[in-house]
Order: sequence, then structure tokens, then C-alpha cells
Amino acid sequence: MKSWIENHLDTIADALSPCRDCPVANTERDVNLPGTAAITAVLEKLLAVLYPGCHGQAPVAHENCHTQLRDTLEQIAAELYDQAHRALEYACNRAKCISCGDCAAQARTTVTALLDGLPAIREMLQEDIQAAYEGDPAARTTMEVVMSYPGLYAITVHRIAHALYSQGLPLIPRVMSEHAHAKTGIDIHPGASIGPGFFIDHGTGVVIGETCRIGRRVKLYQGVTLGALSFAKDETGALVKGVKRHPDVEDNVIIYAGATILGGDTVIGRDTVIGGNVWLIHSVPSGSKVYNRTPSPEIHIL
Amino acid sequence: MKSWIENHLDTIADALSPCRDCPVANTERDVNLPGTAAITAVLEKLLAVLYPGCHGQAPVAHENCHTQLRDTLEQIAAELYDQAHRALEYACNRAKCISCGDCAAQARTTVTALLDGLPAIREMLQEDIQAAYEGDPAARTTMEVVMSYPGLYAITVHRIAHALYSQGLPLIPRVMSEHAHAKTGIDIHPGASIGPGFFIDHGTGVVIGETCRIGRRVKLYQGVTLGALSFAKDETGALVKGVKRHPDVEDNVIIYAGATILGGDTVIGRDTVIGGNVWLIHSVPSGSKVYNRTPSPEIHIL
Amino acid sequence: MKSWIENHLDTIADALSPCRDCPVANTERDVNLPGTAAITAVLEKLLAVLYPGCHGQAPVAHENCHTQLRDTLEQIAAELYDQAHRALEYACNRAKCISCGDCAAQARTTVTALLDGLPAIREMLQEDIQAAYEGDPAARTTMEVVMSYPGLYAITVHRIAHALYSQGLPLIPRVMSEHAHAKTGIDIHPGASIGPGFFIDHGTGVVIGETCRIGRRVKLYQGVTLGALSFAKDETGALVKGVKRHPDVEDNVIIYAGATILGGDTVIGRDTVIGGNVWLIHSVPSGSKVYNRTPSPEIHIL
Repeated sequence: MKSWIENHLDTIADALSPCRDCPVANTERDVNLPGTAAITAVLEKLLAVLYPGCHGQAPVAHENCHTQLRDTLEQIAAELYDQAHRALEYACNRAKCISCGDCAAQARTTVTALLDGLPAIREMLQEDIQAAYEGDPAARTTMEVVMSYPGLYAITVHRIAHALYSQGLPLIPRVMSEHAHAKTGIDIHPGASIGPGFFIDHGTGVVIGETCRIGRRVKLYQGVTLGALSFAKDETGALVKGVKRHPDVEDNVIIYAGATILGGDTVIGRDTVIGGNVWLIHSVPSGSKVYNRTPSPEIHIL
Repeated sequence: MKSWIENHLDTIADALSPCRDCPVANTERDVNLPGTAAITAVLEKLLAVLYPGCHGQAPVAHENCHTQLRDTLEQIAAELYDQAHRALEYACNRAKCISCGDCAAQARTTVTALLDGLPAIREMLQEDIQAAYEGDPAARTTMEVVMSYPGLYAITVHRIAHALYSQGLPLIPRVMSEHAHAKTGIDIHPGASIGPGFFIDHGTGVVIGETCRIGRRVKLYQGVTLGALSFAKDETGALVKGVKRHPDVEDNVIIYAGATILGGDTVIGRDTVIGGNVWLIHSVPSGSKVYNRTPSPEIHIL
Repeated sequence: MKSWIENHLDTIADALSPCRDCPVANTERDVNLPGTAAITAVLEKLLAVLYPGCHGQAPVAHENCHTQLRDTLEQIAAELYDQAHRALEYACNRAKCISCGDCAAQARTTVTALLDGLPAIREMLQEDIQAAYEGDPAARTTMEVVMSYPGLYAITVHRIAHALYSQGLPLIPRVMSEHAHAKTGIDIHPGASIGPGFFIDHGTGVVIGETCRIGRRVKLYQGVTLGALSFAKDETGALVKGVKRHPDVEDNVIIYAGATILGGDTVIGRDTVIGGNVWLIHSVPSGSKVYNRTPSPEIHIL
């Protein structure tokens, strides 16, 4: 084994060395984006600020709470600024942008906007917590919701990622939302706009597309897709990026498990209930109840 | 950036400081529940005791095995006792309970009951391992089941969480089961009662509700829901918590992928087979075979 | 609590001590397989070699990149050789094999074949990255695909696990693929054979069975199952292991979310499109379009 290593490893390392035309190189020269673990570390600090003591190992002492919070915020500011700066420069390099100029300024704006917005985000999250507590008979306390509900985890990460996405920050919001997807099975694109009082129960398999707009007090169950019906292509046959292609869901809508709602022109009117496994590719008016005409399954008794 | 941090961070930290009416504060004064990472750490020690050497980094030497096991059990006892104590006090505080008195005694009872019950739990798990090995043609050895089957991971965590839940311990069982859900995509509420020889294959998207009762040698596939049909409300319109709202599944039942079975009065009789994607909201007698009348899909050949 | 610990823990530790007939013991005498955390650590090093700087905490300096790559490869070689050796010896012990002899030689062959094959694996992955970028309107850059697409993560781990599986290495490939399943909700058995340019979007709930053969440029969405229709049993009633029981999917096929395709004789001909939620248990010719005759759901407006 030893002699094989000496004879072969250099060749293999050469073959694998990052090179200009390799899309996966991320080193200090050329590109140097933050790795996903570094981005996730910042995200976890943001969660520690929003829910002090709830997700960590060690308890947070009431006396030091303010100091600890402030220290964590300072770390977030420094780390996220550095990461945002590099993500913006990477995007500039790729777009061969010469004119836009000041990635540092844009990084600063992005980070300060997020931090200034944290109290408002926490207020929305309190409505989300309340919605989960009131919407699930199994929830015993709001603290149980904070510490164990995947739907709350996903919407918390989403509200952070969406704030960064709205500032035009590339890549980092998407890495954050994918971290939540990995943990919860709930895949919300950071572009989606979602009102307060949002609750996803169980959640595994939920997909919410980039251009969805979701109102207030909406409730989803596991396996719900709010997706695209088809993709527009340009004259070269390449997909057109950025057009509205996912549905809108208005206030107080409930969508049961496994329902699929597709299309950028589809609007689910307020106060509607969509039944389990429904497949819907057009709008329905406010106050609708939409159910499958399910034929009972065939039952043979031996 | 630096001057912004000096000018703004205190204000933001103030706005985010935990306060009495904020449901997400968890600090040493008022409440001080264990953080989810601390609870997960105890859970991982329990797994190390049930499957020595299987999930760790370093090998377990046969000679030290007993000592190591005993040490780990001692750590579990101390840490879980402390966590249980705090979770019980938190629940007492919230319920403004003055009379129940002895959270310390209840924490002790809970922890000793779990540890005393571990050998019996391991016996049930051996039946679960055997069921997975016999039920999946891809399984080569029982060790493969232990080291790589998400269904076994989920039922292992469930048997621990259910033992704690049955002792009336709040919050901690739910955090444990959500850890398993995050890892496996299998969401089993700690309240569900599940017999030995249980096997879930693949598992992503499975939901098993709090008041389910599942018999012996039951086999589920991915995406199966054993859920609630609707929620009872009290006179104020709030959901009634704690009533039987999920189905019962008797011995030797097989439920294929994507089937949905709902309702607290629904009983799936023993030796029944439920086909893929079946939607069932009433009971079926023992020995049934339940299949969708699937119309073949429409096929157009270009 | 303290006196209880002194009085009871030895008894419980005794009851739980690993023993010959306990399938879950993994200690230095008898068996001593690598724990799942050790296997996962090697897997993460392989990802660091394929995507330098993309998934870690610290940036990779361009100047040291080659040295760092070579060092990581050397660690992979040593650790994986040791793990493979033990996994092979474990399998030999179980099969009471006396004759096959040289587990060390087979471990060496397995590891060198994987490392020699890494450049070719990376080439396939570049086609996978390109397919994701071109197939998803939400993808802004190929780097976004590398750093945040669960489908790419799953196929990357699969290409490694499949290379090890093809060398006959037991257990370790399965632990690797289950790690990817836990992270992404995508469950690909290491036995499946998958051509380049493969893209799974969203991915939660996808199941791809051991004996699937998938062509080039195939695209799947979340919740697709390529599974077994039924299991062959031998004369004793035990499942027959190793027979072809999962479908083949030819080049350029697209399979939309929630479709289920079952059976070892089922072949999906090239350039076919399978619609969402289709249930298919027989072959379809090349160029087919397969859709459900979905009756519209019933809509009641209040």
C-alpha cells in the first residue's frame, strides 16, 4: 500500500488539481467563496440570537445574556460581511463586471439591513410559533415548538435567507436554505415571499419555489409542492431564468399533505382549503374547498 | 463597518434581549431548559450503549467494553436526570403548579425507569433488526441493518423517547424524536405505541401520529402517513389536545409506499396488506388486501 | 440518585454487555468494523478532494492546494484501506470463509481502484453539475449547484459508493449512501448504475433500488421511486437476495415528482417523459409521454 501511495498519489493529485476551467475549484486565488460549513456556522449564530439557549449545549445565564447576545451579533456582523463581500466579488468576476464597483459597500448594506431587521424578523417568528402551537393538537407548549418543530426551523432560516436574497446577495441565502432542507426535508427557495403566522406540520417533502408569494396565516402539511408547471425557454433553447413560475397562495389557506399546486398564474384565493393529494394547475376563488373525487380503494377480504 | 457595529449593535441587542413575555427565552433565570444539542448528546450516548462501537469514531475494545458501558451509563444517568429535572420544573412553572412538589423525585423515577428498561428495549430492537434483515432483499447482514438502516435508527430513538414519554416527561422525548426525524425523514411522535419486529424501509416522509397503536411485525414503506382526519375543537374554537385521533394497526400488517390512513376510529385488522398510495379513512377487517383501482396512465408515443 | 447508580448500574451494564449472539456488538475482539462516524469522516475527505474549499470551514490557498490535496488523498488511502480490510474480514468471518485468504490484498485493490478512478468520477460529476445548471431555472451559477444542490451531493456520494460496491466491498458503501440519504432525503442504493449528466431536483423522498440501471442525462424530481414490484422467495420462504428487481431507465428520460416505477422487467425507453404521480409497472417504448388521466378535483365554493 505504502509503495503504491508513493508511486501514484502525485499523479492523482495532479489530475484533480483545481484549474481555471474546472467549475468546482474554490481556492484563495481566482475564486474564494466561503465553504458551506463556514456559512452554516454563521447561520447557527443567528439562530442562537433569535432563540437564546434553545439550540446550544450550555445554558445562557440571564445576567450575561445581553453581553453574550451582543458578542454573538458582533461575530455575525464580521463573518457575514466577509462572506458576503467574497460572494459579491465572485459574482462580479463571473459577470465580468467592471463598473459596479463597490462590492464592499454592497456587502455592508446587506449585513446591516439583515441585523437591523432582526427584531422585525423575530416578531414574525413569534406569530409563526403561535400558529404552530394553535394549529397542532400535539403541541404542549410554545417552547416545544421552538425546540422541536421542523416547520419553525425551516421558516426561521427562510426569513433570514429571504432578507439576504432581497438585498441581492448571491449564493449564501441558497446555502442557508439548503441547510434547512437537509435538516427538515422542507425545501423553501430563499426567493419565496411568505407572510407571518406560517405553519408547516411534519414537513418532509415540502417544496416551495422561488417565485411563490404566500399570504398570512397559511398552513401546509408534509409533501406539499408549490412548483412550476413548465419552464420557458429562450431562442437558443436555454431555460429563461427569473420569470414568475410558481403559484400565489392568499391569506388563511390550508393545504393538506401531498397536494401539488403548479404554475406562475395559479392563485389560491383566501380562506381556501385544499385536500390531501389534490393536483391543481389553475386558480381557485376565495373560500373554495377543493377535494379529490377519491374512489374508495378495492378491498378483498381473504 | 466597524463604526456601524459600535453605533448600532447595542440597540439591536437590546431589542432582542430575552424578556418575560418572549416565548423563546431560555436563560438561567426564569426558565432554563437544556438546549437541543445537550439533549441530542445524551441520545447519542444511549445509542452507543445499545450498539457499542457501531456509530462512533473509535473502536470499542472488548476488554474495556463493560467498563466503558458502565461509564457511559453513569454519564447518561447524571445528564438526563439534570435535564429531566429542569424540563419538569419548567412545566410546573408554566402550569403555576404549587402542590405537585417534587420534580426531583419525578426526574429520578423517569431516569431509573428508562435505564432499568434498556435491556428490554434492546430485546425489542433485536426483533426489529431481524425484521429488517428478513424483509429487505438488499440487506446482506444484520450489522448492515444496524449501521445503515434509517428505519432502525428511527425505531431505536422512538423506543427510548416513548419510554420517557410514558413516564410523563415533557419536551425531551419530542426533541429526541425530532432529531431522528431530521436524520431519517421518519416522523414518529413519542406518544405512539409500537410493537416489536417493526420495520420501515427507506422511510423518508413517514408520519406516525401521537395516538397510533401499532401491533407486532408491522412493515411500512416510505411516505406512509398514519394521521388525524380532523381535529376536535372546544367551545372557544381551540383544538382539543390529547384525544385519540390516529389509527390502530394490528399485527403483521404491510403498508406500501405513500399510503395514507387517517382517523382515531380507523383500525387496520391483522394480516392486512395496504397497497401503494391507498387513501383510507375507515377500518378494514383482518386479512384484507386493499388496492387502488388504478386506471393505467395515458401513454402517447411520438 | 447517586446510591441508585451505585446499586443498579453494574447490573444494567452486565445485561447490556456485548455477547457472541448479540447482532449489535462491534468490539475489538470478534468483529471490529469501523463505526459510521469513522466512515463518514473518510467520505467527507473524498468530497474535499473533489470540491476543494467548497464544503469546509477554512479557505484553501491556491499555492498549497496541490500539497493539501495530496495529503488528504494520503489520509483517505490509509483510513479507507484499514476500514475496507476490517469490513472484508468481518464478511469472511461470517461466511466462515477459510480459503479466500487475502482480505488485505482485496482491500488494497479496492482502495487503489477508487483513487485511480477519482479523476474519471470528477469528469462525470462535471456533467452532472452542468445538467443541474441547465435543468433548473433557479440555478444562477455552477458553483451554486456544487454548494447547495442536494441532488449533486447525492450523486457525488453515489459515484464513490458505487465504485466501492463494484469492487465487492461490503457494508462501507451502504453506510456512505445512507449518509447522503440522511442529508438529502435521496436514497440511492450503491448497487444502482447511473450514467453521466444525472440530475435530481429537490430530491426529498427519491428511492433508487439496488438493481436499477439508469442511462445518460436522466432527470428526476422529488418523490420518484424506482423500486421493486414484489420479492422472489426461495423454497424456505426467505427472500432471494441479489436478483434483478428494479427498473431500467434509458437516456434522456425525465420523470416528474412523485412518479412510481416498479419491477425488474420494466424498461423506460429513451427520450420518454413520465408525468407527476404516474404509477407504472410495465415497460414503455422510446419517446413515450406518460400522463395520468387526472380527473379535476371537486371544487366547492362557499
